[in-house]
Amino acid sequence: MALAPEDHRPTDDGRRTRRPLNLERWDEIVDAAGEVFDKKGYAAARIEDIAARVGLLKGSLYYYIDSKEDLLFAIVDGNHSRGLAVIDEPPELTTAAPPIRLGAFVNRWIGIVSAVPGYAAIAERDLRRLSPERQGIVMGKRARIHRFVRTIIEDGIAGGFFVHGIEPGLTANNVFDLLNGISAWFRPGHPLSYDELAEHLRRLVLRGLGADPDAYPAALP
Amino acid sequence: MALAPEDHRPTDDGRRTRRPLNLERWDEIVDAAGEVFDKKGYAAARIEDIAARVGLLKGSLYYYIDSKEDLLFAIVDGNHSRGLAVIDEPPELTTAAPPIRLGAFVNRWIGIVSAVPGYAAIAERDLRRLSPERQGIVMGKRARIHRFVRTIIEDGIAGGFFVHGIEPGLTANNVFDLLNGISAWFRPGHPLSYDELAEHLRRLVLRGLGADPDAYPAALP
Repeated sequence: MALAPEDHRPTDDGRRTRRPLNLERWDEIVDAAGEVFDKKGYAAARIEDIAARVGLLKGSLYYYIDSKEDLLFAIVDGNHSRGLAVIDEPPELTTAAPPIRLGAFVNRWIGIVSAVPGYAAIAERDLRRLSPERQGIVMGKRARIHRFVRTIIEDGIAGGFFVHGIEPGLTANNVFDLLNGISAWFRPGHPLSYDELAEHLRRLVLRGLGADPDAYPAALP
Repeated sequence: MALAPEDHRPTDDGRRTRRPLNLERWDEIVDAAGEVFDKKGYAAARIEDIAARVGLLKGSLYYYIDSKEDLLFAIVDGNHSRGLAVIDEPPELTTAAPPIRLGAFVNRWIGIVSAVPGYAAIAERDLRRLSPERQGIVMGKRARIHRFVRTIIEDGIAGGFFVHGIEPGLTANNVFDLLNGISAWFRPGHPLSYDELAEHLRRLVLRGLGADPDAYPAALP
């Protein structure tokens, strides 16, 4: 993939010459696709509906994409690229204690969960409708993100910061279920702000792993 | 609704006389629907495909149902009825300490998560495709299940068993995200059994809420 991780704009694949498409316009198309997938379900969504939302004819949209799957991939892979950016830790944290690193990760992760459009979590469910190659790309990113959290948990257990006897990979899954779960029910306008929610989750996760959240600073990048 | 909570077999609604349908046969049809919804997406699923899986013609299946939505409702409402059964606490627990009650709930809940077919969690996502009346029925059950957990958390905070300063309704959501999340990745054959997973989750939840899991018995109904 020559594209930057967050850039899923179609490129000339040698089969035909494509008009250049600016990034903003492409984002509009991907947004429209996400909304239609959300509303109708991926399988039932029609390219016409997506095209109409951005004022294009079906044929014009096909000028930029080969299939509906290109748009699903743009959404799902884009999510995972944002996730990868979150495991790129600020340098001052790499040598910090595991509960500080995990707490800061929770904070950063809630930052992207809150910024990602509602349809993104829905689109994740259709991951298996991508081609095996594209599923592989996405799962590779997911594995790297998961490994980041699992390793912090392992280090925390080894260093006596977290309780012994928990399986780090399984516990990392639990952490992601807890953090990603909010996208199904937490909405702006909730009595808690996203920052307060992130702090609530940081405390819940650290306590769950056996660390005292009060012993570590709350808000870190 | 005159039907028992778990019985979604069609009844004579006065508009036409329906053949009696035994419960086993109905369960087969609902199972087939769940699998087709899972495979194709609810919106794209066709009654023909569901009928074919159980050796019926489309017309014969329509003899028993009015629409695809009847089958979605049977799945989703059935799930919630199973959930309601789980909040029906064994009498010896009703006066137990909140960490014991919550731990036992985790255990019972994982019991149903492990027993429910894979398509059930998928079907939940299409809740909003039910009629408003049916959504209301399901959401009513969901609210009762949520309230059960929230009340235990409230009691636990008030009694000094759980940490102060956590919002009980929000924390109940977190608990459900944690427990239901496993259906996306935990499979029989995992190094941990469901019982071990339930115990892992009981400990994670209790620690997360500030209670020492070792102070309370592990396996309770």
